[in-house]
Amino acid sequence: MTELMNRQYYLASRPKAAPTPEEVPMRDVVLAPPAAGEVVIKNMFISLDPAIRGWMSDAPNYIEPIALGDAVHSSVIGRVHQSASDDYAEGDVVMTFGAWEAYTTAPAAALNKLDESAGVPLSNFLSVLGPTGLTAYFGLLEVGKPQAGETVLVSAAAGAVGSIVGQIAKLKGCRVVGMAGSDEKCAWIKDDLGFDEVINYKTCGDFEAAVKAACPEGVDVYFDNVGGDILDAALLCLNKHARVAVCGWISSYNAEVPHFKNLWQLVAESITIQGFVVLDYVEQFPQGIGQLVQWVMEGKLQFKEDIVDGLDNVLPTFLKLFDGSNEGKLMIRISE
Amino acid sequence: MTELMNRQYYLASRPKAAPTPEEVPMRDVVLAPPAAGEVVIKNMFISLDPAIRGWMSDAPNYIEPIALGDAVHSSVIGRVHQSASDDYAEGDVVMTFGAWEAYTTAPAAALNKLDESAGVPLSNFLSVLGPTGLTAYFGLLEVGKPQAGETVLVSAAAGAVGSIVGQIAKLKGCRVVGMAGSDEKCAWIKDDLGFDEVINYKTCGDFEAAVKAACPEGVDVYFDNVGGDILDAALLCLNKHARVAVCGWISSYNAEVPHFKNLWQLVAESITIQGFVVLDYVEQFPQGIGQLVQWVMEGKLQFKEDIVDGLDNVLPTFLKLFDGSNEGKLMIRISE
Repeated sequence: MTELMNRQYYLASRPKAAPTPEEVPMRDVVLAPPAAGEVVIKNMFISLDPAIRGWMSDAPNYIEPIALGDAVHSSVIGRVHQSASDDYAEGDVVMTFGAWEAYTTAPAAALNKLDESAGVPLSNFLSVLGPTGLTAYFGLLEVGKPQAGETVLVSAAAGAVGSIVGQIAKLKGCRVVGMAGSDEKCAWIKDDLGFDEVINYKTCGDFEAAVKAACPEGVDVYFDNVGGDILDAALLCLNKHARVAVCGWISSYNAEVPHFKNLWQLVAESITIQGFVVLDYVEQFPQGIGQLVQWVMEGKLQFKEDIVDGLDNVLPTFLKLFDGSNEGKLMIRISE
Repeated sequence: MTELMNRQYYLASRPKAAPTPEEVPMRDVVLAPPAAGEVVIKNMFISLDPAIRGWMSDAPNYIEPIALGDAVHSSVIGRVHQSASDDYAEGDVVMTFGAWEAYTTAPAAALNKLDESAGVPLSNFLSVLGPTGLTAYFGLLEVGKPQAGETVLVSAAAGAVGSIVGQIAKLKGCRVVGMAGSDEKCAWIKDDLGFDEVINYKTCGDFEAAVKAACPEGVDVYFDNVGGDILDAALLCLNKHARVAVCGWISSYNAEVPHFKNLWQLVAESITIQGFVVLDYVEQFPQGIGQLVQWVMEGKLQFKEDIVDGLDNVLPTFLKLFDGSNEGKLMIRISE
């Protein structure tokens, strides 16, 4: 049996800003056969998420930082290539927490088998039916706790998470205002997704004034994907007892020290700011996925996938997350 | 009937830092007789609270800022001097939201009658049985939600609110760590109030290291009275799903722009930061007061009152709140 080679990205040094090919280079390594209970997966899709940038730093985080020399973690979907587990056969399609790599070796217990016969494109399990959709679902409903008639403000609203947050908020009877970074994105979320108002935060000028104009009754729930100055300004627009669901602060990942000067609003308006990660709700995943599948089947949830081909394109594609140039859930397709 | 004169502090201009006698001077004004349904109260105690400094600025707040030219608001306890209400007779002892002044005129509906026969010193209704005790009670239990066995960290722990927070946390079975600004204060909360550990934040050096040493299992609830750098450092010591109850940020009242660089911890540890004011729980006041009275009667709650005589001493006494030199609930006694 010829030796199988794996190609992967690894962390050579911790990025100071946007990760470079020197900090996150590729390497070819020999792939060992699976140990008992393990499988080797030939990856089809690998996920590119803002959170991965956080794992590259050594700041405290909700998972251990990636160790120097380790492959860069990410969710992957692939087909079982070699199995040393009775539970999986070659050819099974699975999802697991792997890495930016051609092949992932994982214990059977860490795999989720995907049902190809359901007729859902496999990539959906990395987007609306995967961590992205579940992040939107639990972050909005469990952390934001919107009530019908309330106003929900969403940043990065044309993004993979934000676009689903806004649609779920509409399904729950809220008034939804989205912020995005281009007129095209704004048009998509208003015309196609049904957001009530949109703000282009690159052209709106005074951000606080723009939010107040778009939200004449104030903001009850702010679903925050960006942090930084936008959060600081949004604090001034929040109603009494507003909730801020902090999903991730993409604006801070590559910056040094974010400053907040309006946190006094917390006390002034009895505001709750709550950080969360989707793993907080892992026991409720089946319920969440069930609801998301139903909405997708009923045509009530639209979503975009931004699929780029080729393992060689991981790093430049990853950077699109930080310059606002991607639309929809970003992933790399390695093989069909 | 001779004209009655009232003496009061008013807001001449908005203080930039610690309020000065030029910004908050005294004046004598003619006191009109009470209109129908009103009473005139001769004040016995007026309350000095950190929040009053906030009301002097025009930043958004949980009550309207004090208008320029208006008397400086505060809670007061006094005896009805003239009544134009069927519900109150001269001599009744009442509590209301008045001002730093000798006499307060208020509608009967805004008064709370106090029962002198209960044998509780009247001043207690401004401290442990008043807004101070209720702030501790609801902030800790409703916002912090401590569970038995968890670690509760309290800043300004020898203060009027913090000292009660720590004692209630002990009554609920928590491990309690208090921070205070002098060895005397630390000794009081540890030896007399039963805190498990204390930190003198003026002498402890590296604050983060001191908290981690005092809280080997991390912090589950942080009751934050001070904000600023202490909060920023405390964020690094919080456990997964920790709750921060933000009662007020005394360190920021007189400062310009607080900076926070560790808010990323919110997402990393799924932390909730919630601001509150005691008025959020007004419907539960009877239940809270009932529990506090019971604990006081049973000798389970100790508290200090820092009572300074004389209306002329309001402003210099008020400043004690910001230099850490008061111990216990601060108030001015005008008359017996």
